[in-house]
Amino acid sequence: MPQLRKNPITREWVIVATDRGKRPTDFPSEAQPAPTAKPANCPFCPGNEGLTPPEVLAFRQPGTMPNTPGWWVRAVPNKFPALAIEGQLNKSGIGMYDQMNGVGAHEVIIETPEHNTTLAEMPLKQVQDVLWAYRSRYLDLKKDPRLKYILLFRNHGRVAGASLEHSHSQLIATPMVPKAAMEELEGAIRYEQYRDRCIYCDILSEELRSGDRIVVENADFVAFEPFASQYPFETWILPKAHNASFAYINEQQQRSFAQTLKEALLRIQICLNNPPYNYMLHSAPCDRDDKDGFHWHLEIMPRLTIAAGFEMGSGIYINVTPPEQAAQYLREVEVPQAELVATEAAPA
Amino acid sequence: MPQLRKNPITREWVIVATDRGKRPTDFPSEAQPAPTAKPANCPFCPGNEGLTPPEVLAFRQPGTMPNTPGWWVRAVPNKFPALAIEGQLNKSGIGMYDQMNGVGAHEVIIETPEHNTTLAEMPLKQVQDVLWAYRSRYLDLKKDPRLKYILLFRNHGRVAGASLEHSHSQLIATPMVPKAAMEELEGAIRYEQYRDRCIYCDILSEELRSGDRIVVENADFVAFEPFASQYPFETWILPKAHNASFAYINEQQQRSFAQTLKEALLRIQICLNNPPYNYMLHSAPCDRDDKDGFHWHLEIMPRLTIAAGFEMGSGIYINVTPPEQAAQYLREVEVPQAELVATEAAPA
Repeated sequence: MPQLRKNPITREWVIVATDRGKRPTDFPSEAQPAPTAKPANCPFCPGNEGLTPPEVLAFRQPGTMPNTPGWWVRAVPNKFPALAIEGQLNKSGIGMYDQMNGVGAHEVIIETPEHNTTLAEMPLKQVQDVLWAYRSRYLDLKKDPRLKYILLFRNHGRVAGASLEHSHSQLIATPMVPKAAMEELEGAIRYEQYRDRCIYCDILSEELRSGDRIVVENADFVAFEPFASQYPFETWILPKAHNASFAYINEQQQRSFAQTLKEALLRIQICLNNPPYNYMLHSAPCDRDDKDGFHWHLEIMPRLTIAAGFEMGSGIYINVTPPEQAAQYLREVEVPQAELVATEAAPA
Repeated sequence: MPQLRKNPITREWVIVATDRGKRPTDFPSEAQPAPTAKPANCPFCPGNEGLTPPEVLAFRQPGTMPNTPGWWVRAVPNKFPALAIEGQLNKSGIGMYDQMNGVGAHEVIIETPEHNTTLAEMPLKQVQDVLWAYRSRYLDLKKDPRLKYILLFRNHGRVAGASLEHSHSQLIATPMVPKAAMEELEGAIRYEQYRDRCIYCDILSEELRSGDRIVVENADFVAFEPFASQYPFETWILPKAHNASFAYINEQQQRSFAQTLKEALLRIQICLNNPPYNYMLHSAPCDRDDKDGFHWHLEIMPRLTIAAGFEMGSGIYINVTPPEQAAQYLREVEVPQAELVATEAAPA
């Protein structure tokens, strides 16, 4: 069972993989990166369902059996989970330090049966179904009272931490609200106490008014480069409707979200030659996901530069492309309009 | 002039390089990393002094001229500074956002005239002189009342953000106390209010008592793997004497610090096959560097794994090597004792 350990100075938690600790020789050297799986032995390709733990969700053709081909979106527990779903927290002290068992959930959402495609290139209906799978897994895991926060995220490209190239997202549920989520929530609450308005709603008005940092907009969503972007071409997708969690949006909003996400990713992919990136879905903690006080959104961080000693020591990032310029580059990309029209997902 | 912009939600500052914003095609692709300079055109090699801005400090042979060969440690302003030394802050609002001019300092400490060596491999006396250069630059810049915090750091290896392979450290001075430094300071103050003791002194006692995470110890310093290490093989060097800043340690402590730093880096280099790493010198803000309330130290972070969507979205790191195991691997490394004896630095 992994351990959760707390830094007594900053109160940050760390997950320590105590069971299968890596030895010095287990790390790939800078010159020889780890190899990526080919379709024949890719655990996310149809026909290889036996290489993953049994599925917890699949959108599949009628009449096909679980853990066999016939699915178009499939969610499975991570084979090497950062946190374990079984067990109790057993909070305890060791000398002056605090720790607890690494209880939580770690799942993979396989976004397509196709080995060589990106989320940006998939049919719009397929992107919608991926987001629907996010929602289903969130609502299912939320029932577990041990889990306080559920983070959905995506690593694209080796530099952004993707160890398998087959298109997938991940979900990690933690037994506490993580520091980064808590800080964002506290920031929103602080602003609301002062101005009696939502800070994200205000940012939306400000951005739509100035227009300088907008990448794309539709009836329900806006994609833009935030004023204080930490990363070059950092892009946020903000819903116009004020809701604490993505889990309760309606079907029309879901379609709009998929459209904005696909278009933003496609513009980034074309503009920057398919760069590595991470995206994170920021939503309220489980116990207040239907309350006021937060405004859910998605943050895309292209990994074009390296965070080094200065960023690690100060928390201050150096962004080499002003967000206004980045927005202009992304707006100027030519996107085939056919890409942005919903069609049925092609089953495998 | 670069800009400092504030995230209104988290209150984190970002440096935005507005003057020479990078275009999409300026970023190296994942497949083609940026090339590194060879000695002939390396701006840090002797004979190429004209490729850097004029030196602000040099330890050099008597009779040699500034900005010519004959130095063994040399500090220069960064040619492409993240923050500019000239100008006023001019704090202002843009709509709902806050910004100020990117005023500060950004310097490079060239640690040796030799192109192909590492800090771990240098003679002990040379390491001592590098640390002495840190101190001199700190004390000089501290006189500027616009500068509130001075961070000394080192990026080793391309993956850790080093764009030039010639051994060097960097210094960035900021016009505010950065968030990461403030959080550490606040954590130390919170603990002291509760227990009336320094948290770093307590960590030192705890680590020396248990011994499980110690890498190396001498009369004045301890190198150990912290209980809640965020990175595999993360190593902290803590002085036994409680001082807020490294800038006021005496010559004996300076020698001990150099010895501990060299030995820790050498053990990491041998154990992990010269891995990329960052280190950061954590010291008190300028205006309280002689007061109680902080305990300076140095943190070494090998870059063996990639911080991805989960770490970025949660602030929780996944450490795949328990610190107790990492400490044992590092202790077991055979270090030639001759490496750890002070000899005069060989001038170039």
